[in-house]
Amino acid sequence: MNAGRLIGVGVGPGDPELLTLKAVRALGEADVIAFFSKLGNGSHARAIACGHFRAGAEELPLGYPVTTEMPKDEAPYKESIAAFYDASAQTVAAHLDAGRTVAVLSEGDPLFYGSYMHLHVRLSTRFPTEVIAGVTGMSGCWSQAGVPITQGDDVLSVLPGTLSEEQLTRRLQEADAAVIMKVGRNLPKIRRALAAAGKLGQALYVERGTMEGGHCVPLEGRVETPAPYFAIVLVPGWGARR
Amino acid sequence: MNAGRLIGVGVGPGDPELLTLKAVRALGEADVIAFFSKLGNGSHARAIACGHFRAGAEELPLGYPVTTEMPKDEAPYKESIAAFYDASAQTVAAHLDAGRTVAVLSEGDPLFYGSYMHLHVRLSTRFPTEVIAGVTGMSGCWSQAGVPITQGDDVLSVLPGTLSEEQLTRRLQEADAAVIMKVGRNLPKIRRALAAAGKLGQALYVERGTMEGGHCVPLEGRVETPAPYFAIVLVPGWGARR
Repeated sequence: MNAGRLIGVGVGPGDPELLTLKAVRALGEADVIAFFSKLGNGSHARAIACGHFRAGAEELPLGYPVTTEMPKDEAPYKESIAAFYDASAQTVAAHLDAGRTVAVLSEGDPLFYGSYMHLHVRLSTRFPTEVIAGVTGMSGCWSQAGVPITQGDDVLSVLPGTLSEEQLTRRLQEADAAVIMKVGRNLPKIRRALAAAGKLGQALYVERGTMEGGHCVPLEGRVETPAPYFAIVLVPGWGARR
Repeated sequence: MNAGRLIGVGVGPGDPELLTLKAVRALGEADVIAFFSKLGNGSHARAIACGHFRAGAEELPLGYPVTTEMPKDEAPYKESIAAFYDASAQTVAAHLDAGRTVAVLSEGDPLFYGSYMHLHVRLSTRFPTEVIAGVTGMSGCWSQAGVPITQGDDVLSVLPGTLSEEQLTRRLQEADAAVIMKVGRNLPKIRRALAAAGKLGQALYVERGTMEGGHCVPLEGRVETPAPYFAIVLVPGWGARR
C-alpha cells in the first residue's frame, strides 16, 4: 500500500472567507483532519475551517497536555511538550502508513510560529508532504485596520512580546515597522518599551483581527485592561514618512 | 448616487489556488478591476486572478511611467512616481464617484510592500474602503521549501536587499530568522553579508515560489548567475536549534 500524504493547511487569521481555494480543496479531499486543541478550549482552527471538511472525514483532535504551573523554560515542561509532539506524530504516522491523507489545520500560516511544524519536522522526511501557505494573523490585523505596514526599503521586525523590556526597546528603536505578537500579560512591558523607543504614539492595538468583534485602537489611548494572548500590536512603518 | 467601494485585493504569491474565497468573491462582484503594470511586462497580479473576473467587468490597467535611467533616490524619479500615483488615484476616484465598485489587485498582501497602498492612502479617507489580506510571497516561498521559518520566541526580520552591506550584516547577526526581499542584483552583497554574519550555510534561495518552475536551493551552492528582483532569500530560525 502506498503511504498517505501529510498536508499542513493554513486556515488564515480567523475569517472563514480568508481560507484559500487550495486549503478548501485539501479539506474536501482529506481522509483525516487533525488539529491541536487545548483542554476545554476546543480548536480555533477547526472552527474556522469545519465548513469545508469532507463528509465522512475522520476528525483527529490532538489535545495538549495540561502544563499550567510548569515553568516554560525548565526541563519538565519541555520534556512533557516534546513527548506530546512525539506521540501526536506517531498517531498521525499510523494514519499515513495506512494510506490515508491527513490534513493538519494551522491557524494563520503553518510554518510561521505554528504548531504544525512540530509534526512537519518529525514526519516530512518519512512521508510525502505538502504545505499550503495561509494568510497570517498579522496580515489579517493590518488589513482590518487599513494600515499600510511596510513600503519601499522598510525593515519589518516581528517581535514576540515575551522578549525582555530592554530587548524589545532596542529592537523597536531599530525597526522601521514592527509587529509584536504574544501580547497578553506582556502588554504593560510592551507599552513601556514602545514609549522608551519613541514609538508609542504610532502603535495600534488589534484584538481578534478579521474575526467577529475584532477591533483596532491606538494603543496609547487604550485603557489598561488585560489583553488576550493572541492580540497584536502594530507599529506601521510607512505612515511616519508620508 | 452612492459612491462605489474601493477594495484592495491580495491575490497571493503566484499559485492561482492561493487566492482566498474572499478575494474570489470580490473579483466576481467588482465593476472595475484595476492593476498596476509595467510597460511590456503585463501584470503578474492580473495573470494570477483573471480566471475570477466578473464577466463584463471593466479592466483598468495602471501603467507605470518609464523611469529607467532615473536614479531612484533623486527628485525627478520621486516626482514622476508621485505624479503617476496621483493620476492613478484620480482615475480610480472617477469610477468610485460614479458608484462603481473598484477592486485593485495586489500580488501577495496589499499592505505589505504593495503598490496598492499608494491608492489606499490617497482614497481611503474619501471612499468606503476594504482590504482583503492575501498570502504573502514570503509565506509562499517557505511553504514551497517546506522550511519552518519561526517558532516560539524567534524574532523575524524582513530585510530589503537594497540595504547597505554593513546594515544587512548587522541586522542578520541580530535576527533569529530572516527574509531578504528585492534580491536581484543585490545577491552578491547579500551573500557577503550572510557570510559575515555566519549565516550563509543556513540560507536558502527561492525563485518563483509557488509558481510554475519555482525552486528552492541552498544559497551557498548556487552558481552565481543573475537573480530576478522578486527572488527571496530565507534564513530559517528554528532549524538551527532543533
